[in-house]
Amino acid sequence: MKINVIRNVMEANERAAEDVRHLTSEAGVKLVNVMGSPGSGKTTLITELVRELRKKKRSCGVIEGDIETMKDAELMAGLDIPVVQINTSVFGGQCHLEASWILTALNQLPMKNLDVVFVENVGNLVCPAEFDIGADLSIAVLSVPEGVDKPAKYPLMFRTVEVVALTKSDVEAVFDYSREELNRSLHAVNGNAELVYVSAKTGDGMVQLISSILGYLGLDADA
Amino acid sequence: MKINVIRNVMEANERAAEDVRHLTSEAGVKLVNVMGSPGSGKTTLITELVRELRKKKRSCGVIEGDIETMKDAELMAGLDIPVVQINTSVFGGQCHLEASWILTALNQLPMKNLDVVFVENVGNLVCPAEFDIGADLSIAVLSVPEGVDKPAKYPLMFRTVEVVALTKSDVEAVFDYSREELNRSLHAVNGNAELVYVSAKTGDGMVQLISSILGYLGLDADA
Repeated sequence: MKINVIRNVMEANERAAEDVRHLTSEAGVKLVNVMGSPGSGKTTLITELVRELRKKKRSCGVIEGDIETMKDAELMAGLDIPVVQINTSVFGGQCHLEASWILTALNQLPMKNLDVVFVENVGNLVCPAEFDIGADLSIAVLSVPEGVDKPAKYPLMFRTVEVVALTKSDVEAVFDYSREELNRSLHAVNGNAELVYVSAKTGDGMVQLISSILGYLGLDADA
Repeated sequence: MKINVIRNVMEANERAAEDVRHLTSEAGVKLVNVMGSPGSGKTTLITELVRELRKKKRSCGVIEGDIETMKDAELMAGLDIPVVQINTSVFGGQCHLEASWILTALNQLPMKNLDVVFVENVGNLVCPAEFDIGADLSIAVLSVPEGVDKPAKYPLMFRTVEVVALTKSDVEAVFDYSREELNRSLHAVNGNAELVYVSAKTGDGMVQLISSILGYLGLDADA
């Protein structure tokens, strides 16, 4: 008989990620992993996406990853959607989310009623990219004020994702932002990533981002 | 005879941090650990600090921590100061710097000629705060666009430092920034942290920040 040995934390995580994929696929739920630096605008972006998807009759849930505080979860709950908070302080203040925690969180959501579950990962451009959480789509959120060199400096994150949302695009002029330089930096590490500039303030780019997300999730057709 | 056992990575790091403190104190060099999110403005701030300290006849070296790329080190070398680059990709892409790497880096700097060595830690609000690198002073760099809630959400970082540099203060109006809310969020986790708003663009606050740093390092008197 083959003995099942889990050799290390990454192997354990990979197995849990498989379990997540199985669970969400059975339930007909799409899982979206939203990653980015602290203050890049992940919470605001997810809030907007949930609102827009509601207009398209797609219902969403959210799993909030934070080291401490319930702030983001409380904000999401205000949208009247199901939310589970994971505080990594109970896991020693980890800098990322692991697939096994996502599994637990999913089981606390009314999955049968949901189309999409957004995971807001811990604010960090490094560690979350190392842990597969079993998502159907991964999005990197990079805000304009962070600058154009981040894909070169944090390549794993930008290699891991299908979509890059460039947030706070309304302040491009203030920061003398160069879209060309960002393109160069991004495409050097990931030639396939879809890049969408958005502004939660003006609403710019949101239609394109939603349509791109629904395309990746195979949810293009009307619900 | 007492047997010396290093039980885990944190204990090993603590011993290396003691070695760093011994080495820098012997050499008469002050070590400053600069931490903050990707894009918060650490590199620009250190560049400005090096320039200002030069005017005060204080000579600086820099240890650059990045996961990949030599970009920041090349920029620093352009200031005609000694620079050592640590790329954590050789250590599995670690999200922080460890004291033993600082020890190695220090030994490659001409310490006898230096007054201050700045360490630019990996861009990350989580992991660097967990590793004591033996610094005489720790500074958190938090940019205005990141928002006012970061101290509450990343408490260990803001509890660890003596000084918080609020960068990009020239865009406060664009982001409807509230200094009061930032104060509340910061002082809930660290009542002693000195808070200085700076802008590399306008130069605002730089005199105050330099004077505060020199005070902490005991270098107030003229060189």
